[in-house]
Amino acid sequence: MTQHITIVGVGLIGGSFALALREAGHKAHFVGVGRNSKSLVRAVERGIVDSWSTSITDATAETDLVLLATPVGAIDKVLKLIAPTVRSDTIVTDAGSVKQSVIDSARLHLPHFENFVPAHPIAGTEHSGVEAGFASLYRGKRLILTPVAETSTDALETVAQLWQSTGAVLERMDPEHHDAVFAATSHLPHMLAFSLVETLYRMDKELPLLHHTGGGFADYTRIASSDPVMWRDVCLHNREALLASLGKYKNGLDSLVAAIEEKDGDTLERLFKTAKQTRDTKVLPVEKGVPRKSE
Amino acid sequence: MTQHITIVGVGLIGGSFALALREAGHKAHFVGVGRNSKSLVRAVERGIVDSWSTSITDATAETDLVLLATPVGAIDKVLKLIAPTVRSDTIVTDAGSVKQSVIDSARLHLPHFENFVPAHPIAGTEHSGVEAGFASLYRGKRLILTPVAETSTDALETVAQLWQSTGAVLERMDPEHHDAVFAATSHLPHMLAFSLVETLYRMDKELPLLHHTGGGFADYTRIASSDPVMWRDVCLHNREALLASLGKYKNGLDSLVAAIEEKDGDTLERLFKTAKQTRDTKVLPVEKGVPRKSE
Repeated sequence: MTQHITIVGVGLIGGSFALALREAGHKAHFVGVGRNSKSLVRAVERGIVDSWSTSITDATAETDLVLLATPVGAIDKVLKLIAPTVRSDTIVTDAGSVKQSVIDSARLHLPHFENFVPAHPIAGTEHSGVEAGFASLYRGKRLILTPVAETSTDALETVAQLWQSTGAVLERMDPEHHDAVFAATSHLPHMLAFSLVETLYRMDKELPLLHHTGGGFADYTRIASSDPVMWRDVCLHNREALLASLGKYKNGLDSLVAAIEEKDGDTLERLFKTAKQTRDTKVLPVEKGVPRKSE
Repeated sequence: MTQHITIVGVGLIGGSFALALREAGHKAHFVGVGRNSKSLVRAVERGIVDSWSTSITDATAETDLVLLATPVGAIDKVLKLIAPTVRSDTIVTDAGSVKQSVIDSARLHLPHFENFVPAHPIAGTEHSGVEAGFASLYRGKRLILTPVAETSTDALETVAQLWQSTGAVLERMDPEHHDAVFAATSHLPHMLAFSLVETLYRMDKELPLLHHTGGGFADYTRIASSDPVMWRDVCLHNREALLASLGKYKNGLDSLVAAIEEKDGDTLERLFKTAKQTRDTKVLPVEKGVPRKSE
């Protein structure tokens, strides 16, 4: 069925997908597509793909399945490019962190929108690029499918089975709900971490302090080492949900700052207790249930 | 020399100090002091201290060294209590995360201020209380001494040697510089983490999302499980430096939010790149040099 798989973007997400399927014994010809031929050659060397092409239309004209593993911002363009030549029975799926905007693009461009399966693997590391992929990335991690009314059951089932063989734990969510939840639980924390490190970079010019940071700070800011282009695209494509989360966060931070200004120890203690209790009771059990490395 | 050591506060910091010294073979009688006799009994059971007292004046009247391992907010009161009865040659030291306010209190209350040695171990976990202490907590972690002009060289040397035998790596800093650096690199990240979890607690009431958080979120918010009273006191006692850091952070976050509002991808990408480069080049090497668990 899926004898020929095209991976658009052979970095951490696309590379790990191919490596995981091959390790699970999935027999198919894998083609890597990208703009950088050096990375594509390296992807063949690493056993990620069997062949490569810098022509997205060539590589997708005769394929059973296309995985779009590019930053979210490139997906619209890629869908538009492949739309005229992609076969009527080719399944197109993606791995973007934002779902509604990707679905909108697919609906706009693809003549067979029913074969488009929107998906989001909740896995990653702070590394990116062709060297970053590894076969076990998805093991025990969540894979969220956000099909819409038009989505073909067969296409959905095929994509679900492939992800299942990577070791991922499958979940289904409504796309809009997905985007709101991840704006708050993933995109917002990334914004705070990027902003913290950027602030300290500025402060460091006046008072050297970065060399005083230790393992705690390194752990806390790990997600600030994530791919800048990927996160730029998340901001632009999940803009409204992210702005809503940022607005609520800023209100919370303002209350905290006001309490410090007013030397209001009771409010501070109450706020910290709420946070501690929430994390101790509502966040940790999930971690214990399904170990995950990074979102 | 230090045959009799009094530990005020037998939680993570004080308990680990005593356990580390004992494991290193330091022979002394250790007395635990606190308000909660149950915790003190438990501290004897765990081998942290040899005896205990709920009377701070009794326990410090005939001791060679007092370690103040309470939240920063209790230190002023404790110093005032022990000042009339502490011997002229007793060394008093602390483990507070804020140094200037503690030094001010010691100067105000202690008749022999020269025997006061301000110190700050850069070590901790998200756990607290009498069960949290362990002998290896300080191994390879930094211990910052912030002596002032009046500080006796002998007292400083004694305290330095004790910390050295816990396995800590010693450093010296000016107290004001210490407070500014840690406001930015430790106190600020704790505020952001507390505030993030508290925000999500509020958002979760409208749209359940906490059950969607995974290991990445749990890692990122680990420091929000820290002791609320300790952090309330840090806010109140390092108020100005922390407010300055929070102000700079809020400016940075405002720029990020503005860039998202304006769909300004170039600014976002530049900001994320600066953060990534800073973390990759200026934060990680420190982590590799001296492994540390948490600040």
